[in-house]
Amino acid sequence: MNMKNFITLEGGECSGKTTIIESIIKKLEELNIDYITTREPGGIRIAEDIRNIILDVKNTEMTPECEALLYAASRMQHLSQKVIPAIEANKVVICDRFLDSSLVYQGYARGLGIDKVLTINSFALDYLPGLTLFIDVTPDVALKRMSGRNKADRLDLETMDFHQKVYEGYQLVYKKYPERIKRVDGNQELGKVINDCVKIVLDYLNK
Amino acid sequence: MNMKNFITLEGGECSGKTTIIESIIKKLEELNIDYITTREPGGIRIAEDIRNIILDVKNTEMTPECEALLYAASRMQHLSQKVIPAIEANKVVICDRFLDSSLVYQGYARGLGIDKVLTINSFALDYLPGLTLFIDVTPDVALKRMSGRNKADRLDLETMDFHQKVYEGYQLVYKKYPERIKRVDGNQELGKVINDCVKIVLDYLNK
Repeated sequence: MNMKNFITLEGGECSGKTTIIESIIKKLEELNIDYITTREPGGIRIAEDIRNIILDVKNTEMTPECEALLYAASRMQHLSQKVIPAIEANKVVICDRFLDSSLVYQGYARGLGIDKVLTINSFALDYLPGLTLFIDVTPDVALKRMSGRNKADRLDLETMDFHQKVYEGYQLVYKKYPERIKRVDGNQELGKVINDCVKIVLDYLNK
Repeated sequence: MNMKNFITLEGGECSGKTTIIESIIKKLEELNIDYITTREPGGIRIAEDIRNIILDVKNTEMTPECEALLYAASRMQHLSQKVIPAIEANKVVICDRFLDSSLVYQGYARGLGIDKVLTINSFALDYLPGLTLFIDVTPDVALKRMSGRNKADRLDLETMDFHQKVYEGYQLVYKKYPERIKRVDGNQELGKVINDCVKIVLDYLNK
């Protein structure tokens, strides 16, 4: 199946993905390009049910392996019921986070191993995005932005360590898929980040 | 982790697994061998929650890939919370169906592919049973027994075809793991099947 029109956005916290997506779709609308935006579980009932099990505060005993498999299950249902039908209808699909997030967060930051998480997501490999925008924000900038956003007085070591791991994980995944993933310098002022992203998407779509 | 004391039973419908397990544990009790019996999801809350999503009649749109991943997720939680703690406590664990059932039913009979289902179950490969009893019943015998049990007047073609596929799937999986899986002729009279199974288990445990 040709997934050329499947475009995903990736990046750690405070990378500005939400605002960037808004700017991309504004441009797509100007150009009369048919699109949808989504993010897992994307309002798909089965995928939402699965996510509810993951997020259920009662489920503190859930193993990382079980969690990773539940994300993979939710992903396949979202793909099948939302992404693929839109692609088949010749729409551009803009998806906020996808497989790479699992590789980074569960595979690297949580320590399951990128290749292990890739293996259990093997069904999704038939539906890899044609283009992934990776908004690369260094941990120091992310923490500074987060501090401003949350009015936090203190960012404890665990948080810093986790941001560092997410950062490292994204660098590894980026190196793994240099053709598919286009890196954007997310440390720039947001207007510039947005311009870079919109340009890459339009070039990619030959518009 | 040494999974020597993890013993699973496999076989199609009407292979007599329930009665066989009863006879095995009776023998284990006579020999004062500490054991538990279980089957997925095994009363583990998270695994039960996952199973409920799979079995929810509302979820007819669930894809086979999502279903297979949910079974794999449920399996890891059951392993972690029930099987592994018992193994660590030096108990023999007798489990009615395990990974091989997924390979046969979802991988072969439902057509996802045995290797694909194996791939998404890769976490479970670290916890393969030391011994698997495969109760091999040919489809004609299974259907005859089922007909008696359910007082069915008619066994439609789809059922026969599915039984045939389960049969073929088990033969393939058996050939894949000749060291681990011991085949028992399930077409024999049940008393003989039980004798064969109990003997294999006791020999395996050196009792």
